[in-house]
Amino acid sequence: MSTDRQAVTVIGLGSMGSALAAALLDRGHPTTVWNRSASRAQPLVDKGARLAATPGEAIAASPLTIACVLDYDALHAVLDPVAGTLAGRTLVNLTSGSPEQAHEAVAWAGSHGADYLDGAIMTTPPGVGSPEMMFLYSGSPDVFEAHRPTLAALGDPLHLGTDPGLASLYDAALLGLMWATMTGWLHGTALVGAEQTPATAFTPVALRWLRAVAGFLTTYAPQVDAGRYPGDDATVDVQIAAIDHLIHAAAARGVDNALPELLKSTMERAKAAGHGSDSYASVIEVLRRPADAK
Amino acid sequence: MSTDRQAVTVIGLGSMGSALAAALLDRGHPTTVWNRSASRAQPLVDKGARLAATPGEAIAASPLTIACVLDYDALHAVLDPVAGTLAGRTLVNLTSGSPEQAHEAVAWAGSHGADYLDGAIMTTPPGVGSPEMMFLYSGSPDVFEAHRPTLAALGDPLHLGTDPGLASLYDAALLGLMWATMTGWLHGTALVGAEQTPATAFTPVALRWLRAVAGFLTTYAPQVDAGRYPGDDATVDVQIAAIDHLIHAAAARGVDNALPELLKSTMERAKAAGHGSDSYASVIEVLRRPADAK
Ligand SMILES: NC(=O)c1ccc[n+]([C@@H]2O[C@H](COP(=O)([O-])OP(=O)(O)OC[C@H]3O[C@@H](n4cnc5c(N)ncnc54)[C@H](OP(=O)(O)O)[C@@H]3O)[C@@H](O)[C@H]2O)c1
Ligand SMILES: NC(=O)c1ccc[n+]([C@@H]2O[C@H](COP(=O)([O-])OP(=O)(O)OC[C@H]3O[C@@H](n4cnc5c(N)ncnc54)[C@H](OP(=O)(O)O)[C@@H]3O)[C@@H](O)[C@H]2O)c1
Repeated sequence: MSTDRQAVTVIGLGSMGSALAAALLDRGHPTTVWNRSASRAQPLVDKGARLAATPGEAIAASPLTIACVLDYDALHAVLDPVAGTLAGRTLVNLTSGSPEQAHEAVAWAGSHGADYLDGAIMTTPPGVGSPEMMFLYSGSPDVFEAHRPTLAALGDPLHLGTDPGLASLYDAALLGLMWATMTGWLHGTALVGAEQTPATAFTPVALRWLRAVAGFLTTYAPQVDAGRYPGDDATVDVQIAAIDHLIHAAAARGVDNALPELLKSTMERAKAAGHGSDSYASVIEVLRRPADAK
Repeated sequence: MSTDRQAVTVIGLGSMGSALAAALLDRGHPTTVWNRSASRAQPLVDKGARLAATPGEAIAASPLTIACVLDYDALHAVLDPVAGTLAGRTLVNLTSGSPEQAHEAVAWAGSHGADYLDGAIMTTPPGVGSPEMMFLYSGSPDVFEAHRPTLAALGDPLHLGTDPGLASLYDAALLGLMWATMTGWLHGTALVGAEQTPATAFTPVALRWLRAVAGFLTTYAPQVDAGRYPGDDATVDVQIAAIDHLIHAAAARGVDNALPELLKSTMERAKAAGHGSDSYASVIEVLRRPADAK
């Protein structure tokens, strides 16, 4: 254990908290840990972590505490009784929650004299420690800069802005992109799988295609900001015509069509709003206006 | 114009057909073109293309004809009257359609003594000619190999298998992935946009995240093939808990929730089918069994 690294405390040793503590230990940070079920600390203690007997003792051991428990209810169950110990220290909260919960937490921490940074982890536990994986932070830039070298042990730290809710907001937005992408991929995998194409044969093609799709998003982002969607590559009308091939092919093979049907009706709402000859980026106009509120 | 390159005919000069002909001309292929509206040929004639007066004259000019018109109705409207000219030649059809239409076309071409290859273009017109862009082909491997050097002028040619319907099937599956991904991205963009984050600020983060998501798909593909979905990174239960943050954050900001609600109900069907502690890959089990047919 090197001693020139900042001492850190990790509270919460579920799959994610354990991965965080292990990454800190790997980088030589003196690491104190605490978990409600103490038994989960054993693999970390074997790696050199110090197990604190109480959350208060854990917080007192380091200028920086990283918390990663199930949700904000769990966070407050652990920290409320020992909030006084946080005075003059920093709490980095990597528990998933809403932007509103992040706003409340920064006020709560401030009322106890603690610095606070909200964060979101954009990887699964096996990715923790890799500099390719993003850890999103929002709140005080000074607190972020002060702890950036330590946070870099966990992944690539990105500071999104001073609004403490931004990390959670991005987290929600990015997870939505992930679920949409994973479900679209599974739907395509089911479709080609109906013709005996293995997922492991389809997926490399799908991943190459996702790189092309990434190029479309890069083209469309400035269109969204400008509010103008020139359809010179492919129009909403063209996409509506093409999605019927998908719907028919899936129906003929007994594959669920709920996702393509929703995508088609979303495109048709864009067309009805006058975007038929605009690019797909124009679909954002209908997403900003819920169907119910039309 | 070099003369060691194969002569090629392009039928259909919409945005895509024009891009195909231009890429062939750029690589030095003697290129004959035909389009229903002859005026669209002018920019290509200016680049050195020869304009045929009729589809029959166009086909007769080259051993290989590439067709790219709106749909199969347009294809047959153009080619049926001159099908005899195709005897002893090769038709590569890049018109979008269904696997069933590709099967019919290969039989139709064979009945006229022509070789036939079905294809799908996985890019928009500006990407044509780039070796990074995929052109998918299916049908006779011999026909594919014979024309591979010419097809490489258009993009990276991939042969998927002898079943002529495979290119269309992959096309549908990949476009489905694209629409899902683009809509998920637009939803996230609308969400962070509600807090004044520009699309051009969110999108680079979204693109990095998509690379991490690509890693998840690589992990999940062999799970799909094995029919076993160990939830050791993140379980369906964990995703169901997290998607509520997205739904609440979007609702609070007036962003349409149809897509997240559909994704949540799809996850809940997977949970109900016993996959709560499995990975997200298990969702394919419910996509293979339409909700109606439960
Ligand atoms: N896993 C991922 O891929 C991933 C990715 C990004 C973000 N996250 C987020 O990271 C956080 C932790 O996730 P995880 O995967 O580590 O979950 P997990 O394996 O289920 O661990 C949950 C942790 O929360 C603790 N906890 C739950 N309720 C508690 C309470 N009332 N009082 C005290 N401690 C309590 C648990 O303690 P016990 O051990 O005593 O039960 C455990 O340490 C979540 O907010 C999750 O959304 C996870
Ligand atoms: N654009 C893309 O990003 C893209 C990407 C992948 C695949 N594709 C596919 O490529 C094909 C062509 O798309 P595009 O973007 O080039 O469309 P487009 O710009 O609308 O061009 C349509 C072409 O079809 C011709 N056509 C339509 N109906 C016809 C008929 N009854 N008889 C003869 N010719 C007819 C048109 O001739 P006129 O000029 O005389 O109208 C024109 O050449 C479609 O199957 C499309 O799905 C397009």
